[in-house]
Order: sequence, then C-alpha cells, then structure tokens
Amino acid sequence: MYRFTLPLAAIALLSACAQTPAPTPSEQAAPNNIIFMIGDGMGANYLTAYRYFLAEGKQQQIKPTIYDELWTGISSTWPDDQTLVTDSAASATALATGVKTFNGAISVDQQHLPIGTLMQQAKRLGKANGIVASSQVNHATPAAFLAHNPSRRNMDAIADQFFDIRIEGQLVPDVMLGGGLTHFIRDDRNLVAEFQAEGYQYADSWQQLTQLSQAPALALLADGGLPSVLNQEMEAPLQVMTEKALELLSGQPQGFVLMVEGSQIDWCGHANDIACAMAEMHDFALAIQSAKAFVDANPDTLLIITADHETGGLALAADGIYEWRADLIYGVQYTVREITERLMALEPAKLADQWRHWTGLPLTDEQLTAVLAAQHDQPKLYSLLNGYINQATRTGWTTSGHTAADVPVMAYGAGAEQFTGFMDNIDIAKRIMSFIQQSAK
Amino acid sequence: MYRFTLPLAAIALLSACAQTPAPTPSEQAAPNNIIFMIGDGMGANYLTAYRYFLAEGKQQQIKPTIYDELWTGISSTWPDDQTLVTDSAASATALATGVKTFNGAISVDQQHLPIGTLMQQAKRLGKANGIVASSQVNHATPAAFLAHNPSRRNMDAIADQFFDIRIEGQLVPDVMLGGGLTHFIRDDRNLVAEFQAEGYQYADSWQQLTQLSQAPALALLADGGLPSVLNQEMEAPLQVMTEKALELLSGQPQGFVLMVEGSQIDWCGHANDIACAMAEMHDFALAIQSAKAFVDANPDTLLIITADHETGGLALAADGIYEWRADLIYGVQYTVREITERLMALEPAKLADQWRHWTGLPLTDEQLTAVLAAQHDQPKLYSLLNGYINQATRTGWTTSGHTAADVPVMAYGAGAEQFTGFMDNIDIAKRIMSFIQQSAK
Ligand SMILES: [Zn+2]
Ligand SMILES: [Zn+2]
Repeated sequence: MYRFTLPLAAIALLSACAQTPAPTPSEQAAPNNIIFMIGDGMGANYLTAYRYFLAEGKQQQIKPTIYDELWTGISSTWPDDQTLVTDSAASATALATGVKTFNGAISVDQQHLPIGTLMQQAKRLGKANGIVASSQVNHATPAAFLAHNPSRRNMDAIADQFFDIRIEGQLVPDVMLGGGLTHFIRDDRNLVAEFQAEGYQYADSWQQLTQLSQAPALALLADGGLPSVLNQEMEAPLQVMTEKALELLSGQPQGFVLMVEGSQIDWCGHANDIACAMAEMHDFALAIQSAKAFVDANPDTLLIITADHETGGLALAADGIYEWRADLIYGVQYTVREITERLMALEPAKLADQWRHWTGLPLTDEQLTAVLAAQHDQPKLYSLLNGYINQATRTGWTTSGHTAADVPVMAYGAGAEQFTGFMDNIDIAKRIMSFIQQSAK
Repeated sequence: MYRFTLPLAAIALLSACAQTPAPTPSEQAAPNNIIFMIGDGMGANYLTAYRYFLAEGKQQQIKPTIYDELWTGISSTWPDDQTLVTDSAASATALATGVKTFNGAISVDQQHLPIGTLMQQAKRLGKANGIVASSQVNHATPAAFLAHNPSRRNMDAIADQFFDIRIEGQLVPDVMLGGGLTHFIRDDRNLVAEFQAEGYQYADSWQQLTQLSQAPALALLADGGLPSVLNQEMEAPLQVMTEKALELLSGQPQGFVLMVEGSQIDWCGHANDIACAMAEMHDFALAIQSAKAFVDANPDTLLIITADHETGGLALAADGIYEWRADLIYGVQYTVREITERLMALEPAKLADQWRHWTGLPLTDEQLTAVLAAQHDQPKLYSLLNGYINQATRTGWTTSGHTAADVPVMAYGAGAEQFTGFMDNIDIAKRIMSFIQQSAK
C-alpha cells in the first residue's frame, strides 16, 4: 500500500537534478524571497463575491479589492487522471513541484516515487522555508511542499517527514505555523520535542506565538485545524501568522520561500456556507495585505497568489432570480454548522428568535415548523438552515465537492510579470523554481 | 412609459460631447480598426468547459484554446441598481457607451435620456460600423451600439432607429448581418426597402450573403434569431458572417468598428443545455480565429473580446462527484429542446433507441418509465431529459437566469496591453472610445 521506499538521500538527489529551469524573457534579477499564497478552493467567483460582500451589496460602495488589484492571470487545475477535477493534494503537488499527479497524492508520481519540491530546492540553495496554514500544518496543501506520500490521509507519516527529510543534512521547514498538534505529539512519537532538540522555538498558543523571536520555529495553535474565522474572536488569525512568519524569515541572507494557505475557504465551500467563505476570504485578504506591505518594503520579493481548485460550484445568483444579496451575509454571525449545533441545544420556544439573532433573517411559520420537526436531526437541520441562508442571499452551489473551474492568479513585486494571462498550475511552480534557481547564482 | 423624447439631432450632439477620452499610458498610435466581440452569457467557466470539450475530456489532448491564448483580463458586470446581476441590455449599454444603466435599458440613462455610443462616435469621426449577431440584429446587445430605448422589448422601435438615427446626416451602421427579418419588414414599415433606397446591398439567404460585394449592406438571415448551431448543418455561421463583415469593412480609409456577438451562448445557458453551449462556443471560437487572422494581416487593428455577464451559474462538477465528463458531450447531437420535440412526436416503442441515437447516453428502465409518463408534457419532458444529460456529464447549473460572475477579457493586436488585469465593463468602452478619438486625429 505504501510503496515510497526510496532512501531519503535520493530525495535530495531528485530535488537537485529534476528541475530544468525555464528560460525567462528578461535578464532582470530573480526575486530573492518568494511568498506563495494559496486560497484553498478559491475559484474566481469567491473573489467576485468578496468584492460585493465588502461593498455590503451596495453598488455605490463597490471598489476593487486587493484580489482585484493584484489579478494578473488565470490557471487551469486538472490532475493527472481523466476526471478533470483535482483534489487539494494533486493540485498542491503541481504547485509545489511543477509535476501533475493523481488525486490524493502528496508529491509522489503515478509510481509513488517522490517528486522534488520547490522548498527542497530552496533549502539546497541556502534559502529558508516557511509554511503557514489555517488547517493542520501537515494538511494536503502544505504537506505537498515538504513531504512525499501516496495518500494525504497518512497525516502522522507526513508530520514525521517534516522532521525526517533532510536536504544536505538540514531540516527543510524553518517556520511552521498552524494547527495539527495531535499529529506532532502522539503516543508513538513527540515531534515537538524533536524539533525543539534541533533548536526550534515552540508555541502552542496565540500568546506564545507573539513571543517567537527567531527561526527556526514551530507553532501548533490547535489540535486539528484552527477554528473557523466566523466562529471566533480574532478578526484575522491567518494575517497574524503571516506577519509572524515574515518577521521570522526576513533577514535571511539567501532569502526565503514562504507558503501561506487560506485553508478553510475550501471547508466553507464544501459546506456550501457563504458567510463562512466570506469570513475566510477576508482573513486571507488581510494576510495578502500584510504580504504586499512586506514586498513594498523588500522589493526583491515576489508575491504570487492562486488557488488549488474551486470548491462548491459557487454562483452569485440562483433559481432564476436576477440578484445576489451580498448585504444579507453581514447578518450571519456564525457558520451554519455552529448555528445548527446551537439551535439543537435550545428550548423550541426560543428557536425563531435566536435564528433571527444569529442570522438577521426572518423565519416564516412554514420554515419554523420544518425546523422544529428537524431539531434533533443534525444533517437534516443543517441542510434546512443552510438552504434558508442560500435562498435569502440567492447564492447557488452545484456540489459539496470540487469543480474543474479555472482559478485566479495574482502576482506582485519582482517577477510578477511572468504570471499574466492563461497558464496551467504546473507553470506556476516551474516559474517559481526557475526564480529560486536563478536567485541562488 | 416611453420618455425618450429628445430630437435625433440631440443624440448627435451627445455623441459628440459626452466622451472625455481617458489618457493612455503610452503615445503609441491608437488602432484604426476595432473588432469588439461579445460572447453573450460567456462566463469564465464556459471557456474552461470549451477547453476540455475540445480535448474530448482526455487530459492528453488538453491544450490552450484560442480563448486561453488571448486571455488578458477579467471584468465585473454589475448594473446601475442594487441587484449586482445585469441583463444583456444594461451590460451592452455599459460596453457600448462607458455608462452603466438599469436592467432592460438600451443606451438610455436612469432619466431615459440617450447616451451616445461608440459607434455614433466612430461615425462622427469618419469610421465605418458593422454589427454581426446570431440573434436578431436588433436584439439587446447589438441594439445598445445603435439605438436608445428604455426597453429592449421595443424591438420594432429599435430597428427603426437603426435607420432613423443620423450622425452628421449619415446612417450609423454600414454593415448589419444576423437575424430579425420580422422587425425590418412589417405591416407598418419596410425598413429593408428604406435601407436599399439608401444604397444598401441586401441579402436574406446564406447564398445571397456570399454575393454582398461592398458596404453598406444588410443581411437578415432568419425571421428571428438564427437556428441554434447544434441543430443545423453549417459548422460556424457566426464565423461566416464575421468573415463577410470584415471583407465588407476592410479598406475603409478611416477604419471601422465591428461588433460581433455570439448571441446564443446565453440562450443555451438559460436552457442549462451544455451541448448547445459548447456548439455556440465553438462557432464563436472560429469567428475569433477569423478576426485574429484579420489582425495579423492588418496590424492597426484591436481585437477585444469579452462577455456581457455569465448565464446559468455553470459549474464543471455537480452532486459531490469529482469529475466532469466532457467526453460525453460529443454524443449529444441536438439541443435538448430539439430532442424533446422529436421525442414527443415518436411512437413510445422507439423512444429509448432514438434517445441513445441522439445523445449517445443510455436510458435506464426507471428513466424510460419517467420519459413515457411525461412524453406529452413538454416542460416536464424537457426538464427530465436535460437533467439526464447534466447528470451524465456532471454539469451543474444554479439558475435559468444570469449571475453576478466576473467575465473574461481577451485582447490581441494594437492597444491590447490596455486590457490586462481586473477592470469594470465600462472601462472597456472608455478605452475603446479613447482609441476611436485618438485614431481620428
Ligand atoms: Zn476541498
Ligand atoms: Zn441572457
């Protein structure tokens, strides 16, 4: 089942040999630092939705968002099979290695052999690496930059590789900030202690995160993924982590590669939960603001932003009605999952008032009857409530999974002109790898 | 109800005065000719779908389409109201005048006053104009370039304005090719005879179309819109008309503006009919090929392509399944509307075989029972059959109407660099109007 049997030294060899740098059109200096931001599931309609959400649905308030300002191109995402629809693992592999693979694979090919990643390349050439994610740090997208496994589900094995894989004797990730504690402190292994023994500073709270003073560093801020942005107090946890990672990585003599994932845009998409998605898009936008400010202060930096795929088949109108009610999304205060759980715990007499309080939406008598009948059936209640919000806002979805939609590409700073027009996801990785190669000369 | 009472002379005045040319970043010569192509309803997912349709769903055959090759930017489309979702009239007004208006309006503002169009501007400055559409030539999109009316539904009045509006004594359109004969030859007026009296060559068949030898010229090739591409013999009627229009307009000393609309992409979207949409996208792609070849031979030409809005909330996956079966679309030989009508006329015993013959798809026993029960209920039968094709191909739709999705922008030739990144639909018109102004200097 697990056929990845190459010795670790072979990975270093692969990462040293596999890349043929693509020629660049100009002789401009390649960026020394690369900030690679991935909005998981963030199809183009999420950007459009966020623009109108920020404007509260009022045409007088519409203006270009930071996504719009940075938009330069569009990318296809198909995996190395006949489905046309990628999962996050195959797409992250494409973005981390420049090679397409099958759905579920973490930087291994169809023969389950490892494919060298751009972070392994960066480490070999003396750069530092960082990963930031609102999921587990060893979830599919960050995993593909640091590990090799035929299944994204082998999350303990992937966490092990974050420590075990060495490039010329060195650990590959210098900064890791996100969730996933249960995969790092286990009955069979304590990776936190192992990282600490190698000199890594460690934080397991937001308070401690602020204390991290230099790389290498590890912060595991939740057992699994971080709480959904909409359900907690911090406005922008991803932005906080991004700023900390940039602080820890700046000043590296050979520069750095930082991958920041807005992991839970995808999770909201799977849930077909528009208010959840907009909250995650907002956090990701603020993280991009911070990254852009870093580029302004450090012009030898490329900021490149894309998505791995689209999730949910999101559309900004439904059921034949010509409107999208972005204004109503502001009233929804929690994810539908959270609202569902809260409503299940209430006295029936309080249901209607609390629904209005938590969503800003009315509940018709007919809807109340249906809600009361489903109050103790979680999936049914969830489906009803989610439907009410999507109906009210006129938000359409076609699937609880992913789609084959192209995704936006945004670029800013040194080398940004290489990311214009239509491209494929592997082209993005190839161009980044070419920059890493050139900047090390 | 119809408050447009300004004398026609005022329109000429407006078109002469209303435009403040935007500054251009460079002093490059503005293009002398402008080919403005509009895929009605053609959201970004239609381009993605067409890429995989052309590859027959096989990853080994995927390559960039002509849309991909020309892709430079993305445009928002919101109208001048609070719905965020535009109709074709408001969006065509934005694209033809640089001014947003309300849904349904043909180049009039909220006060129902006319807004000067880029074709009126071009005519004033000595250029020739052409329109090509697979709908009626006086349908909403082409209408907004030539007429002013608070309602797109006043199609006879709009046709009248194609003849009646004069700019410095001259008719505005020099070439009109498309459908809509019933609006031009009516009990109360024969516009064809009036155009002929002004020296226009006239064709009402594809055979006669080939005989048109010089502008001005009018071809009305159907009573209403042209037949759906999928239901007729010609591979690419829009391409044939586009090539004829370019032939008739080339050699104009002051250059020309040609608007080509792929009108029925939208109609397939309203019908949620994916095979229909791909056939129209193919015709539009071939028309773009011809326009691109013209630019290659005439480098003082700008080719600019966009959509007025997205139709249908098209998504390339549905129902939680991670695949999109582009390969199955090839088997569908007619629009679902046509297949529905054919099946309604059949003996019940022949239904299953003919369905397989016309779609390439199986019909389960359960489906056959449902089809037999609905055989004489057109809307119900249509809905069933369309559902079978969408289920088999995993195609998702969220609405029978439009959505607020951003739309792709493609540009090629002189001035193409002005259409990169994110823009709004009125920016496209403003840049074109700036070019028209500059090229006349
Ligand atoms: Zn996902
Ligand atoms: Zn339409």
